[in-house]
Amino acid sequence: MEQLKESVCRANAELPKYGLVTFTWGNVSGFDRASDLMVIKPSGVPYEALQPNQMVVVDLDGNVVEGDLRPSSDTPTHLALYRAFPGIQGIVHTHSPWATVWSQAGQGIPALGTTQADYFYGTIPCTRPMTTAEIEGAYERETGNVIVETFAGIDPQRVPGVLVYSHAPFAWGKDAMDALHNAVVLEEVAKMAYHTRQLNAGIPSMQQALLDKHYLRKHGANAYYGQPGIG
Amino acid sequence: MEQLKESVCRANAELPKYGLVTFTWGNVSGFDRASDLMVIKPSGVPYEALQPNQMVVVDLDGNVVEGDLRPSSDTPTHLALYRAFPGIQGIVHTHSPWATVWSQAGQGIPALGTTQADYFYGTIPCTRPMTTAEIEGAYERETGNVIVETFAGIDPQRVPGVLVYSHAPFAWGKDAMDALHNAVVLEEVAKMAYHTRQLNAGIPSMQQALLDKHYLRKHGANAYYGQPGIG
Amino acid sequence: MEQLKESVCRANAELPKYGLVTFTWGNVSGFDRASDLMVIKPSGVPYEALQPNQMVVVDLDGNVVEGDLRPSSDTPTHLALYRAFPGIQGIVHTHSPWATVWSQAGQGIPALGTTQADYFYGTIPCTRPMTTAEIEGAYERETGNVIVETFAGIDPQRVPGVLVYSHAPFAWGKDAMDALHNAVVLEEVAKMAYHTRQLNAGIPSMQQALLDKHYLRKHGANAYYGQPGIG
Amino acid sequence: MEQLKESVCRANAELPKYGLVTFTWGNVSGFDRASDLMVIKPSGVPYEALQPNQMVVVDLDGNVVEGDLRPSSDTPTHLALYRAFPGIQGIVHTHSPWATVWSQAGQGIPALGTTQADYFYGTIPCTRPMTTAEIEGAYERETGNVIVETFAGIDPQRVPGVLVYSHAPFAWGKDAMDALHNAVVLEEVAKMAYHTRQLNAGIPSMQQALLDKHYLRKHGANAYYGQPGIG
Repeated sequence: MEQLKESVCRANAELPKYGLVTFTWGNVSGFDRASDLMVIKPSGVPYEALQPNQMVVVDLDGNVVEGDLRPSSDTPTHLALYRAFPGIQGIVHTHSPWATVWSQAGQGIPALGTTQADYFYGTIPCTRPMTTAEIEGAYERETGNVIVETFAGIDPQRVPGVLVYSHAPFAWGKDAMDALHNAVVLEEVAKMAYHTRQLNAGIPSMQQALLDKHYLRKHGANAYYGQPGIG
Repeated sequence: MEQLKESVCRANAELPKYGLVTFTWGNVSGFDRASDLMVIKPSGVPYEALQPNQMVVVDLDGNVVEGDLRPSSDTPTHLALYRAFPGIQGIVHTHSPWATVWSQAGQGIPALGTTQADYFYGTIPCTRPMTTAEIEGAYERETGNVIVETFAGIDPQRVPGVLVYSHAPFAWGKDAMDALHNAVVLEEVAKMAYHTRQLNAGIPSMQQALLDKHYLRKHGANAYYGQPGIG
Repeated sequence: MEQLKESVCRANAELPKYGLVTFTWGNVSGFDRASDLMVIKPSGVPYEALQPNQMVVVDLDGNVVEGDLRPSSDTPTHLALYRAFPGIQGIVHTHSPWATVWSQAGQGIPALGTTQADYFYGTIPCTRPMTTAEIEGAYERETGNVIVETFAGIDPQRVPGVLVYSHAPFAWGKDAMDALHNAVVLEEVAKMAYHTRQLNAGIPSMQQALLDKHYLRKHGANAYYGQPGIG
Repeated sequence: MEQLKESVCRANAELPKYGLVTFTWGNVSGFDRASDLMVIKPSGVPYEALQPNQMVVVDLDGNVVEGDLRPSSDTPTHLALYRAFPGIQGIVHTHSPWATVWSQAGQGIPALGTTQADYFYGTIPCTRPMTTAEIEGAYERETGNVIVETFAGIDPQRVPGVLVYSHAPFAWGKDAMDALHNAVVLEEVAKMAYHTRQLNAGIPSMQQALLDKHYLRKHGANAYYGQPGIG
């Protein structure tokens, strides 16, 4: 648990380095599958000052089991994702500008090139608008639910991110640092896809064969990118 | 008053850090409601060199009551806002590029997502063009007047910023640092709204329920974002 | 002359700080009206390494009168401007991206807001395409000539910059540092005007009264911006 | 060979400095024509940590002749270019955002101004889409082949870069550092050409006479830019 706090703290502290956050607009969590406990950033605390012992530990129902500060207000969203997606142990939520632009436009990011294909196996989807009942009810948990609904028929380990309609992105991964990595990629492909569509509005998604080639040479049994034993 | 000079000096010095200014294109003031005195940046002095004792103190009529340097040429605009909006004690004026683009386009920034909703309760309005008489008259004071006119029917504490037509933004808040915070948010939402509209020209403003939810979870009696007792 | 070399060297060294240059794509010169001598950056030397004693001194005919290195290949363009515009003693040429975009689009930058009006009294013009004879002849001198031709009817002290068609901007001023200042402004207004026109294609140039007000409150006999005796 | 490893290592390490890479998305190689050996970055290793002795040496058939790490997965693409283009001894591959936008749009970058003309003698071409057979076959080598096919009728020394369809750019030069230089130029002209076309969709390529003038004053027998004996 102390190790998880350290890595979650470090991933939070790296958000500004990658240009993903303004002020405190973002949070990272990590999940321990053995104990079903989540470690998450405290709400509204600046990144520069964060210490591992300020991280908040909560159980799957959102009860704080350790920590003096209030957990991020997005806690119920994170928990909904950990419950529904058993393969993920790290989540990043930010308002990174390019991904947020797609969220605000209410559009998924089509796979237009190999940069996206190296990490996301196809379109990065955008959720549907939430209903008034969802917004006025358990809003943060419902945000998680609408993300889960969006992934009906999509493997969240192969598409490790989503755009929440009128809101901003979530990205995830096998741990907090992997989720951060995917959040950085999501922002970069959001930027490039935006300009690609401005330059050539009619360009379709990339060929399926090229998407398969790039995704599968980095992921799965036959991957041959990087060094053996290095992630 | 010395404390106010320090905080106004510090807020001015932070303008470049957030990318809001080129050269000396911006100024911050703070207001003391007890004495009805304003502290403001001296005109044309670079931010790096600013010292608290260089800040200029003026009364509500614009008379300099303390300080060796000339106050910012925008002083009458600041004073008009402090007179008309009793809930604000800090004002920031910059030519930050994205907000200036909306000012030059003569359009308010619609609320397209939760980033804006977290700080601004709806559209950030743009003033009407000033008349020739206003421009050739007491120009800086008239600039303040046209802002005040724009807020007929809008609560300036819930919409803490404005775009001046063919000019640039003003933002405000409960003190100088809060005004700076809102100026940074204004620039960020201006950037994202611009690109959202380029990507999807027909996207309407966000749902009212979502706007309510986000604004009210951070502001007012039932706020639950951040730590209790932390701003 | 040593003082001029120092200030020209410093202005060249500051080009990267303002994001105006990639590699060696830019040069600054200064002119001494008493001796009719120009000091200019040597060609193709990186900015970080520049020393005042590497600056090249040339006369109005382009003869090197001091210095071991070749002067910038744009030397004849600078000289043509000093000959034609008696009020200027500093010139900056860069390929700064936003101004270059307008040059490549073959369009002048309309005055869309007060940022431009504070420094440029109206549109920043773009030259006509050069003829094949001009290009194949004394190309760099002809570049200067076409700039001078563009300013028929425009006061170069009130519009201290130009866009060369299919090429890039030149800016000037009362000395090298003032020219650098104007080059920074030119890049900033080029960026904002681009986005303003994308957001609102039909927006006309700003009102004449507002242009007059802003230009004249900073320039000329009745200026009241800044501190008395500070530029 | 040790000297080549050093320069290839340094060129790789400089990729982040010019904003050309995110994470490990790019690689530089150098080629020794005497021994027909290529030195290339190891796959998936971060730039900050790179040491010359980690560089991998491979022969023209892709056999590793020196080095403990796996070479970049793009190795067969680099080798195809060295085999086909005898005048080049350095190659850079990145996913730099603006050049990648043009690749994803499937469009070559037209020569719209002198910045491009100073380094590229005309349009920077985009390859055709690869066939499914090419993608599913020896993909990386076929990527090289389709680049070579694109340069039928184009001198690769006069147009030292290409956009791979749905993928990203390659740039090359007389050595690794020269290739890096051209990759930086390619990214800058991609950015400016994008915005030029947004501002003025109908602007044609620059005049042939101006393209000739700028390219030839820096390249070939009659060049007169820079210092004699300096590259």
